[in-house]
Amino acid sequence: MEQITIREIAKLCGVGVSTVSRAINNHPDINEETKTKILETIRRYNYVPNNSARNLKRSESRMIAVLVKGISNPFFGTIIQTLEREIVHDRYIFLLQQVEDSEDEVEVAIQLEKEKRLKGIIFLGGMVTHSKDSLERLTVPYVISTVNMELPQDQESGAVVSIDDEEESCRLVSRLCEMGHRRIAILTAPESDMSIGRSRLNGYRRALKDHGIESSEELIIHMKRDEVSYTLDCGYEMARELLERMQGKTLPDCVYGVSDTLAIGACKALFDAGYRVPEDISVAGFDGLDIAEYYHPDIMTVCQPREQMAEETVRILLRMIRGKTVNRRVIFKAQIRDGASVRKIQQEDE
Amino acid sequence: MEQITIREIAKLCGVGVSTVSRAINNHPDINEETKTKILETIRRYNYVPNNSARNLKRSESRMIAVLVKGISNPFFGTIIQTLEREIVHDRYIFLLQQVEDSEDEVEVAIQLEKEKRLKGIIFLGGMVTHSKDSLERLTVPYVISTVNMELPQDQESGAVVSIDDEEESCRLVSRLCEMGHRRIAILTAPESDMSIGRSRLNGYRRALKDHGIESSEELIIHMKRDEVSYTLDCGYEMARELLERMQGKTLPDCVYGVSDTLAIGACKALFDAGYRVPEDISVAGFDGLDIAEYYHPDIMTVCQPREQMAEETVRILLRMIRGKTVNRRVIFKAQIRDGASVRKIQQEDE
Repeated sequence: MEQITIREIAKLCGVGVSTVSRAINNHPDINEETKTKILETIRRYNYVPNNSARNLKRSESRMIAVLVKGISNPFFGTIIQTLEREIVHDRYIFLLQQVEDSEDEVEVAIQLEKEKRLKGIIFLGGMVTHSKDSLERLTVPYVISTVNMELPQDQESGAVVSIDDEEESCRLVSRLCEMGHRRIAILTAPESDMSIGRSRLNGYRRALKDHGIESSEELIIHMKRDEVSYTLDCGYEMARELLERMQGKTLPDCVYGVSDTLAIGACKALFDAGYRVPEDISVAGFDGLDIAEYYHPDIMTVCQPREQMAEETVRILLRMIRGKTVNRRVIFKAQIRDGASVRKIQQEDE
Repeated sequence: MEQITIREIAKLCGVGVSTVSRAINNHPDINEETKTKILETIRRYNYVPNNSARNLKRSESRMIAVLVKGISNPFFGTIIQTLEREIVHDRYIFLLQQVEDSEDEVEVAIQLEKEKRLKGIIFLGGMVTHSKDSLERLTVPYVISTVNMELPQDQESGAVVSIDDEEESCRLVSRLCEMGHRRIAILTAPESDMSIGRSRLNGYRRALKDHGIESSEELIIHMKRDEVSYTLDCGYEMARELLERMQGKTLPDCVYGVSDTLAIGACKALFDAGYRVPEDISVAGFDGLDIAEYYHPDIMTVCQPREQMAEETVRILLRMIRGKTVNRRVIFKAQIRDGASVRKIQQEDE
């Protein structure tokens, strides 16, 4: 459908272009009757008063794809919202594509790149260690967001925006140790995972070691399903498994879920089994979701600066698209948020 | 970039097309060396082994836009996931666009339609009563999903997939009345809202009337902000306001938040003020989010069949796109899910 131009509208109304412009912009300096006539004509001919329609047409290929694994994960809500806002703000088209847990996101991206004229790609979630080879097949700039992946040095069109999952997890578990916890169980990704679940587990192991606590394999619960699934019911199931393992043994002091969703699922399993949180057992999470703060008791967690990370992701991608140099590795600091879900264990308790 | 064809790959490798096909499909009946050679060639020339790239190119305009108001609302998580899956499954391009609370979604759609060659539109959230005039300006089929809006009879390119918010809200509040609750407070949308907040409030009023309970304006809390915001902190704020209004008066028996997020926010405010749920005051929600089930106590709520509604939305839209007749108004039944957040009030309690 050919767009009618402002010039044609002016002609149809027997006025000048500036008068049409005044009518559109609600300028006071215009005769009411003329204004009504112009606005009616605009409506009748479906004229799009600003230039965005044509601008967008001209730039049909100004498209940035966001590939997200786990789209219903509440952790991504704010991030997707911010990415969309920033991308659209810069007059790019925002293309959201979910990647199934079983799919390889780089393969999906390579495919997408061939199908559309993408200007850039943002990966959200997933991203197990990808081979240099597969990443090299991407021909447009990309940013891996919220996953702290090591990119090969020569991957000049790629960047990473993340927190240091291992380090932050280590800080959280250290805090738990300092609060007197020694038997700390962890609910984490499947054994095969090489992404954030693995890093957070490594941080947990390091913290225990730093505090002279031997880590016990029976306190480490991996997701049973093959696929990574940071859901409430997965946390519930894993906590049930932990409780089964603990039959006839001393309960752990604390259960650490490597996501807030896992931690909340675990709380529910503990409540259902008749335990109190934190009186009988403490629970800690990771991510800093709003719901962790609103849960009862509120969950101690690690807050990722999600909005800033999303903004930085778009900023870096746009700079790369424009051929400018960027910091190809931006690691944000996270913050521990205390919560009533973790109690302090006094020396005399032991 | 011109795509290399399977014929050219075959030529380069000195084999027939069927052999290339066998290599791609991992067919056992092929010499290993030949297979390796073919796969290397495919890689080197970036050949896309299946037809999807070209199919998609040919159908560049097979695009369905999903306009969502409140993208970070957890209620939409599963719905967006299902819509994306169904739309992509039918080989359409899924275009997600968030609409700001202050924006008019129909205007955004009209604009988008002019900018892109959309095949159809799905509206999610928002949709206050829109004038027939503005809806008539849409030239492609559209489905209003999860909002029970009355479409003008002659809007033949539009359909509605929803629950009956007023009816379901009435059923929930009736259940509360039957459980012995009489002073029931409601947390709902701003006074100006004409969407689901209004319908659920109407259902509340009707249920009270049916049970011979006079509704009291002081028990009706509207969002203060001008914009509709079904968030945890909004629920928290509104419950705080309710508690302030109740100073020196009898506490309500129950607080009904017209979304689970509002109900959970309210619980937190009650806990923070030293009350117990449900011993001192009961809390009920609406929507049937997973978190309502995992909250402690679990929240009594109305479960919307979200996945089925999303599937039906896409099914109807695709039928309209293909010019087939559809049921232009599909109203799903919801289900009340009991929860420990609401106690039964015995007659002798009163």
